[in-house]
Amino acid sequence: MIAKSQKHWTGDVADLLRVDEGFVLAGLDPRATPGYSRDKLQAAEDLASGADQLDEYQERLFARGRVDATVPTPTPDAAGASSGASGRVGPASVLLVLQAMDSAGKGGIIRHVVGSVDPQGVTLAAFKKPTADELAHDFLWRIEKRLPEPGFIGVFDRSHYEDVLIGRVRGLAAPDEIERRYSAINEFEKRVTDAGTRVVKVMLHISPDEQKERLGKRLDRPDKHWKYNPGDVDERELWPKYMAAYQTVFERTSTAHAPWFVVPADRKWYGRLAVQHLLLEALEDIDPQWPAATFDVELEKRRLAAS
Amino acid sequence: MIAKSQKHWTGDVADLLRVDEGFVLAGLDPRATPGYSRDKLQAAEDLASGADQLDEYQERLFARGRVDATVPTPTPDAAGASSGASGRVGPASVLLVLQAMDSAGKGGIIRHVVGSVDPQGVTLAAFKKPTADELAHDFLWRIEKRLPEPGFIGVFDRSHYEDVLIGRVRGLAAPDEIERRYSAINEFEKRVTDAGTRVVKVMLHISPDEQKERLGKRLDRPDKHWKYNPGDVDERELWPKYMAAYQTVFERTSTAHAPWFVVPADRKWYGRLAVQHLLLEALEDIDPQWPAATFDVELEKRRLAAS
Repeated sequence: MIAKSQKHWTGDVADLLRVDEGFVLAGLDPRATPGYSRDKLQAAEDLASGADQLDEYQERLFARGRVDATVPTPTPDAAGASSGASGRVGPASVLLVLQAMDSAGKGGIIRHVVGSVDPQGVTLAAFKKPTADELAHDFLWRIEKRLPEPGFIGVFDRSHYEDVLIGRVRGLAAPDEIERRYSAINEFEKRVTDAGTRVVKVMLHISPDEQKERLGKRLDRPDKHWKYNPGDVDERELWPKYMAAYQTVFERTSTAHAPWFVVPADRKWYGRLAVQHLLLEALEDIDPQWPAATFDVELEKRRLAAS
Repeated sequence: MIAKSQKHWTGDVADLLRVDEGFVLAGLDPRATPGYSRDKLQAAEDLASGADQLDEYQERLFARGRVDATVPTPTPDAAGASSGASGRVGPASVLLVLQAMDSAGKGGIIRHVVGSVDPQGVTLAAFKKPTADELAHDFLWRIEKRLPEPGFIGVFDRSHYEDVLIGRVRGLAAPDEIERRYSAINEFEKRVTDAGTRVVKVMLHISPDEQKERLGKRLDRPDKHWKYNPGDVDERELWPKYMAAYQTVFERTSTAHAPWFVVPADRKWYGRLAVQHLLLEALEDIDPQWPAATFDVELEKRRLAAS
């Protein structure tokens, strides 16, 4: 068990961070470090050891994806070997959905958590302001196209949730359209999870003060100016409205098949460690096994020797 | 200069590896380490220091790509700041094309060289056997779609060159069609480089003996079976034909705007170090500068403070 091998946790991280019935975002301290009592320096060590675990899991997932793709009807043996703890046979992938206010650390998670595994097994999708073509379709149209293939860890840097967050706060869609989207999202995510994708939804939660400090640093350093956008200050005025929109998102879309996790993110090192752990748990749940050879190993050894 | 800051090289790597007039693939020793006289352990250290350089260059390239994208008509100052040593203003990107016989180490390059930079600035494209849809179009159709956007480092794991390599060796296209493709490739790459992409074409060159050893290891280890494909042994029989096809590729498509580099790859650590260096030189040539702020920094500081 990942939870057991990661002895630096003092509690069940997933349980501590999961959005359950009665969750109140306003009650969460962005500086908290639920389940973790070590310091920043030790967190770096723990992140490195977690990276090794993530690495092996990712390679197993990728290997399984490759073999699933080439062998449409696995033999009973191969199927048994790759069914995993979830009892599900067939293609499997992981989708990490990252949502946050600006500067909360999505980029750092991608760089330092996702970036520790083989890039060949990762697909990243950064969703920007929709194009005219995207706007002409349903909001899930562009999302569907970027879902990870079997064997891959997909990462959404922003996502379909923008359409019920900024969409709601800025009134980019009518209230009944926003309303429709919550159910559409739940049905969409149900189908995606049923088809073999573990969906890990993370909101990185920072405080307005921490954001102010981070944006200030971007303004102080000429090599960080490109990361600064004057619009970020305008968004700060809408902070309470964004938090209310997130609260509604949690209430409407934290489901059994695709729960939300709210990760306190004022301390970057905690956010990274926590998201890494959530990914590890998702992979542990899939429990991908090295696929059995689809060829006669001894015969191939002889053929290779003779070649 | 990268060449100067990387003191571990005893010669100009790019010059040593570039395919020029009169190049003969058969004359190259796959175990050689041109321009490098240190050992494997030191190579790991040199790779790590090169990774730091690559990291900064990649972030500058990305920053420039972001600002170029949002500012269609840069001010004279901003344009001057981002013109770089090449004297070119406008979008810039890098495309690393990797070609090789199986097990030569493409994956290791992606993992250990490309994987050292922020994944948010990298787009990977692994070209497999073409689909029916792809075959219904010209061979460059699927390639065009995967070109890197401005600011990105794109990596092609196999490429349009498959269409004149396996395409020729296995007779997947008529000789006059193969013939047509060499010119089509040159024109295509000319347009791509003119549009701001530095194309770095690398063939990782291994010996048949080294390949035999590597494939043997895949057969020996159950956790590597998924990487083994019985077809690889069949391809070994065609080794001389593949080498002849590569020789023709070099003669026909190593151009001034997009030269080929043949990297001896029997020693994995040398291949990684050499490809990292070639990427560094390409980025040095672009010389991306941190973009100037497109907003009033002092005004933004006041607005942020008041928010």
